Amino acid sequence: MVPDVPQGYLLAGVHCRLKRDPQRLDLALVMSESPAVAAGVYTQNLVFAAPVALDRQRTPGENIRAVAINSGVANACTGERGLDDARKMAALAAAACGAGPEEALVMSTGIIGEFLPMDKIEQGITAAAVKLGREARDLEAAAKAIMTTDTVTKLAGRTLSLGDRTIQITGMAKGAAMIGPNMATMLALVLTDAPLAPRVAQASLKAAADESFNSISVEGHMSTNDTVLLLANGQAGGPPLDGGDLAAFRTALNEVCVELARAIIADGEGATHLITIDVTGCASRGSARRIAKAVAESALVKTAVTGADPNWGRIVSAAGYSGARFDPAAVSLRLNGFELYRHGAPVAFDPKAVSSSIRDHRDTHIELQFGEGLAGTRFWTTDLTAEYIRLNAEYHT
Amino acid sequence: MVPDVPQGYLLAGVHCRLKRDPQRLDLALVMSESPAVAAGVYTQNLVFAAPVALDRQRTPGENIRAVAINSGVANACTGERGLDDARKMAALAAAACGAGPEEALVMSTGIIGEFLPMDKIEQGITAAAVKLGREARDLEAAAKAIMTTDTVTKLAGRTLSLGDRTIQITGMAKGAAMIGPNMATMLALVLTDAPLAPRVAQASLKAAADESFNSISVEGHMSTNDTVLLLANGQAGGPPLDGGDLAAFRTALNEVCVELARAIIADGEGATHLITIDVTGCASRGSARRIAKAVAESALVKTAVTGADPNWGRIVSAAGYSGARFDPAAVSLRLNGFELYRHGAPVAFDPKAVSSSIRDHRDTHIELQFGEGLAGTRFWTTDLTAEYIRLNAEYHT
Repeated sequence: MVPDVPQGYLLAGVHCRLKRDPQRLDLALVMSESPAVAAGVYTQNLVFAAPVALDRQRTPGENIRAVAINSGVANACTGERGLDDARKMAALAAAACGAGPEEALVMSTGIIGEFLPMDKIEQGITAAAVKLGREARDLEAAAKAIMTTDTVTKLAGRTLSLGDRTIQITGMAKGAAMIGPNMATMLALVLTDAPLAPRVAQASLKAAADESFNSISVEGHMSTNDTVLLLANGQAGGPPLDGGDLAAFRTALNEVCVELARAIIADGEGATHLITIDVTGCASRGSARRIAKAVAESALVKTAVTGADPNWGRIVSAAGYSGARFDPAAVSLRLNGFELYRHGAPVAFDPKAVSSSIRDHRDTHIELQFGEGLAGTRFWTTDLTAEYIRLNAEYHT
Repeated sequence: MVPDVPQGYLLAGVHCRLKRDPQRLDLALVMSESPAVAAGVYTQNLVFAAPVALDRQRTPGENIRAVAINSGVANACTGERGLDDARKMAALAAAACGAGPEEALVMSTGIIGEFLPMDKIEQGITAAAVKLGREARDLEAAAKAIMTTDTVTKLAGRTLSLGDRTIQITGMAKGAAMIGPNMATMLALVLTDAPLAPRVAQASLKAAADESFNSISVEGHMSTNDTVLLLANGQAGGPPLDGGDLAAFRTALNEVCVELARAIIADGEGATHLITIDVTGCASRGSARRIAKAVAESALVKTAVTGADPNWGRIVSAAGYSGARFDPAAVSLRLNGFELYRHGAPVAFDPKAVSSSIRDHRDTHIELQFGEGLAGTRFWTTDLTAEYIRLNAEYHT
């Protein structure tokens, strides 16, 4: 089901020949009818794309009217000209929405190392603007236009009743790991009609991204273009959210982001299992994250799940090399609810039963418990299959 | 060609039913005819096996007479009883060589979470001691006895003439990534008849291991049992090595360790390419290692090599998320000698030529150059193939 579009936003998706297949949309234009507060969370990669550089300068901000997103070409590793092109793409989007040249943000995804074909981008923005002129609220077309190797669109929404205000939070995302040649990136755009102060919008998005987009890993490769944007245009009315209303908003924003992040993982290349890793009892959230990430990114843990192997040794030893400090004698592990390891030692279990449970379910649940403190985290990943290798090793000159 | 055994060592390998196949040796016993200086380098995993705990207590040391190594059972995650068993195995080996109970070291590799079958270990040590009594110097049998999933024995040796002394350095190793269920470990034992002070032996081994065993990565999984031991019994005569003699010894020791480490990588499960990564121009060796490790462990870089894809984007972006600080505009990259990326931007190259060069050679050479300083490192890994997945996802209850 496609979620509602928040008040005061128009959306369109068009094909402008960035992708070869004329049936595939490749440019999305999003307009806010009034200036929106904008927040952004970006890749931590030292090598980042021009659109990331541009958006970083403009977020947090409070006068954003447009967002243009293209797929096909990532505008990454393209130097000064790349940054000029990103700036020009933003100016074109802003102009199409009747805004000033700096009142827009951009995102790009696709092949890296190539310049944006600015003629096509310009035609695409013009075509999309025509649709916006007809009051298009085509969230699905916009979500399709940002897809690269995704097999499905990723959408999520929540509606909140806060006193006499009804607030909508709706997001779209793309991402399905990185596949060749030179593909990159997860992108997400979350729109809301809630009124938010810029600083609050930024903090809320950062917290939500940490619990969602920054808690998933397909192969641990952080791309040059990863971007999550939040626009809040305040069309739901009233003063900026605070207190309990803000808390409710942040919970709903987290849910939207988690749903999108899980959709990315579920669309992981060649994956046969969606793995949820819960780490508890750690001294700090940082420790819990290090452990969860090491387990999530271990090729040996992933292939054990692929093969329905209840291999506690691979999981415990991945925790051991994560860099987090803990007492090995206090570690316990459950897999799909079965206790495999308790207080630092393996326990007797029925390997056939655990193996069947892994084989018969797409969801796998790993619970690692430590004896250091009260901090924990949840992380998602996929298994690793021969199909993943096939997809990522494919190359034709 | 099997290298020479250094003076004053006896070696044997026997089958004692730790492995099911009666044709496969599973216990090695090494004896030094005089007390040897011993050094050790171990896994950094917080979860480590009992033999590691024991050897850590006894190295660096100077009265080691025996080393017993078994395959089949790793004696890891086995608590107090595991440590008692390791101690007993060492005492049995020492007694068989006419030494005191604390004058021996042990290594184990194989299934984790299971106790050592001490009756079999005892029979194996007795059988091996009988061979030693007949002056066995069977390096190859010892190397076979420590194999698990290895397809070939790993041996390397160097002979040094230092003035009127001839010094032999000979090592054996096992390791071919980790495969299921619950297999672990790389082990190496280097024997020399050089006279060395314990502190010097430890420093020399640490430096050699950093350049070799700690500079290889198949899937980034550091096992519970990883151990490298050096025994130096001084039978070549004369005072402990120092000055130029010591420098020559250390160079040869590095060569032996690099040869063994490369043999482990070359025996990597399902690998079709052996990848050498040279990182230069970094601010510190630590930075260079972070970058090399991130590139070596990137599933996307590995699968690109599998598919003969000259994918500079995956390599540069892996460097970017490694955590090392560098100026992206100063990065250059060569692949098999072809320049793909120069000073922060891709350069025009013939993709067919580069792709053929990857496809037609088992060795792939990645050279990443930075503009931060003079530090660098060399790292080795393999590509990632569907066959690797098959081997690691295989599980039968």
